[in-house]
Amino acid sequence: MDAPMRKLIVVAGATALLAAAITAAAVKPEAAIHYRQSVYTMIGWNFVPMVDMIKNKTPWDSAEFSKHADRIAFLAPQLLEGFPEGSDKGADTEAKPEIWKNMDDFKSKMSDLVRETKNLSDIAKGGDEAKTREQFKKTAGACKSCHDKYRSEE
Amino acid sequence: MDAPMRKLIVVAGATALLAAAITAAAVKPEAAIHYRQSVYTMIGWNFVPMVDMIKNKTPWDSAEFSKHADRIAFLAPQLLEGFPEGSDKGADTEAKPEIWKNMDDFKSKMSDLVRETKNLSDIAKGGDEAKTREQFKKTAGACKSCHDKYRSEE
Repeated sequence: MDAPMRKLIVVAGATALLAAAITAAAVKPEAAIHYRQSVYTMIGWNFVPMVDMIKNKTPWDSAEFSKHADRIAFLAPQLLEGFPEGSDKGADTEAKPEIWKNMDDFKSKMSDLVRETKNLSDIAKGGDEAKTREQFKKTAGACKSCHDKYRSEE
Repeated sequence: MDAPMRKLIVVAGATALLAAAITAAAVKPEAAIHYRQSVYTMIGWNFVPMVDMIKNKTPWDSAEFSKHADRIAFLAPQLLEGFPEGSDKGADTEAKPEIWKNMDDFKSKMSDLVRETKNLSDIAKGGDEAKTREQFKKTAGACKSCHDKYRSEE
């Protein structure tokens, strides 16, 4: 094999490696949409038994409440990575395009959610029902504040 | 108001409360299916960057690997509640009906997954790449063992 050919193969190899790295790093919009919807579904699944206790549909159970609060506190920080640039379309989504036009504000609302869910998890561990109820309101408020502005519910 | 009417209202009220309690407790099959698929989606989302490192498509990054391993260890124990009795149908699902005919075996496979993901999370924290790679194989094996038997991939 002559030198130019060897060089060509080396370059081709490096290009293939680079392409693989880019493929590995890039996330398809539909995958991101599917992912973020999954995080919201899991949050919702854990919200239901909490809301049932808050509304006295089921008896108050501090341990159960705490378990679900822990999960939501773990899930909330995983939402943001489901909103990469370009994932405003690509599959059915209730996320408004305004998110990507106001990413700093959206991130700030996500930080509020992370903080309030963390507080809820901490307070629920304490087992004080009244304080937990109070913090639940703040947490639900953080959800609503973002949904009102950035979620299309048509 | 006469006595029978009062009694009727009391009974109606109690029935409504009971109905609310049952509604709160019962999970619709489609909600369970949607929930469990969301847990799997989140697990898959976190698996991708780990697999990319395992296959040397991206450079090894212990902290990143550990982050994803932690998440999977947190998610795995939340799968089982997505398989309540009666959720073998109700929406598109890849879960084979055999799951509910062999629930003890299915639970045992879920326990294997929970154990291996917990081990992966612990070992990844240690930062030893070779040990982490070894434990990743065991974890992926726990996934495969259950998929082979209980997941329809048609």
